[in-house]
Amino acid sequence: MSQIQLYCMGESGNSYKAALMLELCGFDWKPITVDFFGGQTRTPEYRRDVNEMGEVPAMVDGATSLSQSGVILDYLAEKSSKFGASSPEERREILRWTLFDNHKFTSYIATLRYMIALMKMPESPVTEFLRGRITNSMKIIDGHLASRKFLLGDKPTIADISMVGYLFYEGELPFDVTPNVVAWTERIRALPRWKHPYELMERTKQN
Amino acid sequence: MSQIQLYCMGESGNSYKAALMLELCGFDWKPITVDFFGGQTRTPEYRRDVNEMGEVPAMVDGATSLSQSGVILDYLAEKSSKFGASSPEERREILRWTLFDNHKFTSYIATLRYMIALMKMPESPVTEFLRGRITNSMKIIDGHLASRKFLLGDKPTIADISMVGYLFYEGELPFDVTPNVVAWTERIRALPRWKHPYELMERTKQN
Repeated sequence: MSQIQLYCMGESGNSYKAALMLELCGFDWKPITVDFFGGQTRTPEYRRDVNEMGEVPAMVDGATSLSQSGVILDYLAEKSSKFGASSPEERREILRWTLFDNHKFTSYIATLRYMIALMKMPESPVTEFLRGRITNSMKIIDGHLASRKFLLGDKPTIADISMVGYLFYEGELPFDVTPNVVAWTERIRALPRWKHPYELMERTKQN
Repeated sequence: MSQIQLYCMGESGNSYKAALMLELCGFDWKPITVDFFGGQTRTPEYRRDVNEMGEVPAMVDGATSLSQSGVILDYLAEKSSKFGASSPEERREILRWTLFDNHKFTSYIATLRYMIALMKMPESPVTEFLRGRITNSMKIIDGHLASRKFLLGDKPTIADISMVGYLFYEGELPFDVTPNVVAWTERIRALPRWKHPYELMERTKQN
C-alpha cells in the first residue's frame, strides 16, 4: 500500500481534520506542507494540479485524489472501517452534522480565527457578525451534547472529527466555548493516538 | 406510500433545493409552511419536534425525519434512483460540491440576500465581506462549468440542485452571476417538471 500524502499546513483546521483521522486510524501518511500564507493555493498550478477549489486539505492515495475535508473523512472511514456509519440512518446523521459544521460552525470559526489570531486584524462589524454566528451554532451543538458523549451518541465518528477540528487551537479562538462542548473536546483528546495540529503538521505563518 | 411532508417556506433557498428535487422526481409531497419571519424556527417546540438545528427545510417521510438539505437530497436520490451517483467516485464528487456549496456558496448567498433583499438592510462591511466571498466561490464554479454542462459532467445530479438553489430568486440576488453559471442555471431550469421556488412553496414575508 502506497503512503498517503496530505497537502496541508499546521494552521488549517480543515487540514487537521484529515490529519487527525489519518493518525487515529494508524495510516501510513505524510504531510506535504502548502505555503498558504505565501499564496500557493491561489496559483494556477495549485488549482490545476492539486485542488481547483484552491484550498487545503487535498489528499492523494495512489490513484485517488480528493479534496474537501468531509470527503476525505468519508473516504478514510470507509478505507479503515473506523469512525464511520454502521447503518443508513447513521450515515445520514454523520452527513447532517458534517454539513452543519461546514455551513454554520467551521466556516465562521475559520474566518474569525484567521482575522483575529493569525492576521491580527482589529475587531470590526465583520468579526462581530462571525462571532454571533459561532455563538448561535455553539448553543445548538452544546444542547445536542448535553445528553450524549459524541454527536451520534456513545461512539465517536467522523462527524465529531469534522466538528471538533478547530477547537484544539487553544489560545487562538476568539470566542467562548461552552461547557458541554469543552467536555466533548476533552473526550476526543483522550482518544488513543490523538495529537495536536502542530504536532501533525508544520506551521507556516511567520509572526 | 405515504405523502412526504416538507417543512419549508418560499423564501428559503435551502427549502427550495428539497422541494425542487421532490418535484423533479415526481414524488407525492406537500409543503408545510413554516413562519420563519414570525420566529417559529426559534421556538423550543420547533427545535424539539421538527429540527433541533432550528432551520428549514425538514422532511418527514413516514417514520423517517430528516433535516439539512444535503441529507434530504441524498435520501431522495437513493429513494428515486434519480440525480444520484452511479459509482463511489461520483458519490464523492457529489459530496465534494455539496460541501463546497454549504461552506462557501449558499452560506454567504443566503445571508447576503436575507440582509439586502428580504430585510432591506443597508450595505455594510458585513455585506461587502459576504459579497467578496460569493465572488470568489462564483469564479471557482464558473471555471469548473466552462467545460461541463453540469457539475459532474453531462448529467445533472443533486450537487447541481444544491448549488443552484438560490440562483432562481431572480431580482433578489445582490451580486453578479457569471456567464457560465447563468448558462448552467438555464440548463437546470430546462429540466422536465422544473418549477420556480414561489410556485412550489408559499411566501411568508410581509413586505
